[in-house]
Amino acid sequence: MKQSSATSTAGKPIKCRGAVCRGPGQKLRIEEVMVAAPGAFQVRLRIVCSSLCHSDLTFWRMKSLPAIFPRILGHEACGVVESVGEGVEEVREGDLVIPSFVGHCGACADCHSDHANVCAIGFDPAAGGLPRATPSPFSSADDGAAIHTFLGVSSFAQYTVVDVSQITLVGPAIPPEKACLLSCGVSTGVGAAWKVAAVERGSSVAIFGLGAVGLAVVEGARLRGASTIIGVDLNPEKKDIGKKLGLTAFINPKEIGNRSLSEVIREMTHGGADYCFECIGLASLVTEAFASSRKGWGKTVVLGVEMNGEPFSIDSAEMLQGRTITGSLFGGIKAKTDIPILVKQYLNKELRLDEFITHELRFQEINKAFDLLERGKCIRCIIWMDR
Amino acid sequence: MKQSSATSTAGKPIKCRGAVCRGPGQKLRIEEVMVAAPGAFQVRLRIVCSSLCHSDLTFWRMKSLPAIFPRILGHEACGVVESVGEGVEEVREGDLVIPSFVGHCGACADCHSDHANVCAIGFDPAAGGLPRATPSPFSSADDGAAIHTFLGVSSFAQYTVVDVSQITLVGPAIPPEKACLLSCGVSTGVGAAWKVAAVERGSSVAIFGLGAVGLAVVEGARLRGASTIIGVDLNPEKKDIGKKLGLTAFINPKEIGNRSLSEVIREMTHGGADYCFECIGLASLVTEAFASSRKGWGKTVVLGVEMNGEPFSIDSAEMLQGRTITGSLFGGIKAKTDIPILVKQYLNKELRLDEFITHELRFQEINKAFDLLERGKCIRCIIWMDR
Repeated sequence: MKQSSATSTAGKPIKCRGAVCRGPGQKLRIEEVMVAAPGAFQVRLRIVCSSLCHSDLTFWRMKSLPAIFPRILGHEACGVVESVGEGVEEVREGDLVIPSFVGHCGACADCHSDHANVCAIGFDPAAGGLPRATPSPFSSADDGAAIHTFLGVSSFAQYTVVDVSQITLVGPAIPPEKACLLSCGVSTGVGAAWKVAAVERGSSVAIFGLGAVGLAVVEGARLRGASTIIGVDLNPEKKDIGKKLGLTAFINPKEIGNRSLSEVIREMTHGGADYCFECIGLASLVTEAFASSRKGWGKTVVLGVEMNGEPFSIDSAEMLQGRTITGSLFGGIKAKTDIPILVKQYLNKELRLDEFITHELRFQEINKAFDLLERGKCIRCIIWMDR
Repeated sequence: MKQSSATSTAGKPIKCRGAVCRGPGQKLRIEEVMVAAPGAFQVRLRIVCSSLCHSDLTFWRMKSLPAIFPRILGHEACGVVESVGEGVEEVREGDLVIPSFVGHCGACADCHSDHANVCAIGFDPAAGGLPRATPSPFSSADDGAAIHTFLGVSSFAQYTVVDVSQITLVGPAIPPEKACLLSCGVSTGVGAAWKVAAVERGSSVAIFGLGAVGLAVVEGARLRGASTIIGVDLNPEKKDIGKKLGLTAFINPKEIGNRSLSEVIREMTHGGADYCFECIGLASLVTEAFASSRKGWGKTVVLGVEMNGEPFSIDSAEMLQGRTITGSLFGGIKAKTDIPILVKQYLNKELRLDEFITHELRFQEINKAFDLLERGKCIRCIIWMDR
């Protein structure tokens, strides 16, 4: 089966359906698109399912650079290798893989460092093509006009082409919709607790924003043995799912009167949380998260992309007393070595993934997923590309 | 000798000379002061020598809280235990010790943590007395009026009283004027490279501000095996002493035209320094230091107390790419365990201290030390209390 499928399409462009976004905030339109054959160091995937991450929403709404249009969004997915380009030996036709927006070439200084995960092959949110100065594989089947990629992944299409540095082999034991979650959001949150903060057993953790990433930090903190896990969200519906994953306390900022979040958290943790995670992307909340961390050793991890590009403002006296603030992309995860560990933890029933999937939709219903996420009604919505 | 000296003054107030500062920026006046006998958990020291640290200058100039007057400044010193109060078993009459503004009680959560050094007994720059809610031991011999302490040390007097948590035994092999430097500035800088940043062999380091603390970071970075050590200072005289201690490059910000410091440093280090140290206390320079650090793993350590109390402003996109910023007091040094290691390194001729002493003065010339430091003419000026 694999063999014949590979043979029939390998080396040729594929015509398939892709959800094209033609302007900021415009509904995606499912169109016929052409997907070029993979070039050197590229892999063409048949996307099995994709889920909607908040960054897709951010770039969908955004009116200027790094937003560009027309574009195929989507970067959290699971797919099957359809064919590979020259020089690709790591995967072959039929392999179950997930793409990741941060690559892992294994050869650059960043990949060699124990402290970094931002591979030099890199990614550029403003780029319309693929890494290694390669143009977009997508064009309109109608008029041949180019369609831009997103983060080198563009998973809101039945087929896509991804650089081999951005591919991790995961299958076949893990179901594709579970693997899909490890492609971005859950790995980011769990990785932040595991790789970036290295949360210690018995410690206290405060998480600002309980979207999928924030909830994955809850899961990661629980796995690391934190004894106090405080979640902060304006949406009261996040309390139950948070508690299911391991929250020991929930704070709704609307319900603390005139007190500041940091005041409340310092009181709850007898001086400040050992680890604070900002998962929203709001400069004012970063300031508050930092102030909620304990003097002497408190560490604040910033996961959210600041939504207005504002700088973070950090109290200088608070910083001097031994506090740290650190940023990370993709939770410090080095895809090819760390994601297989997370897959194993899932298969061993240590890491929970099922709880993150609140909705499942067919590809043609993709705009509904945007609506659900915008209204804070879903954690992760799986979009099945062949249903 | 020790015995008789202890016997004759122990338990009684001592009348001696102290340099009293009676108002912001006013010349210190050497007056007769009374120094009370040490209370519980206190040690009375005969100060052998004291050196002038930049924080003394800052608090001398400062017009409002945490500055208070009249006050005896000075917190970097070396002394001999004259007598001890109730409950003190760690040192005894005649021991050569150094005080430190950050204590090390050994019993609190901070002292127990491997990640912190800000002892819970704490210090309060606005306090006029001693820790554990104890009043100042100083009063005017003239009219009995109280004179405030500074950082619980007040070493600009022939005798002082210090909490036992702020005392480290160092003697007798190390000369007092060398030990004196470990009491604050040199420990802070070396500690920042050693304990806070944990500078790695072969790494690149950029140091902003080459006062005693910045130069001690140079020394610390050299000891840790850094291969590139870049120093930044507006004062061209800092180049030679910096090179003597291990600088591999010197940048005078006045000589880089329209380019930013971060641009120049990123170019010199092929992407950014692995470790950046801000040793001035200027929010704008912290921003620049952070921008000079390498994406992926760059770590910025802030050592300077922001001189205007301004918050630090950190670019959010730069932070997300895996950069870290951390603050520390006293270079992360836990006095009673880490200073003896530094003393041993000095005695083994690994750690250099002699180079930091550029001037020596008699007690009565103390105002000259302020003048020299203000004009950037000295690194450390030793003030001999009995000369």
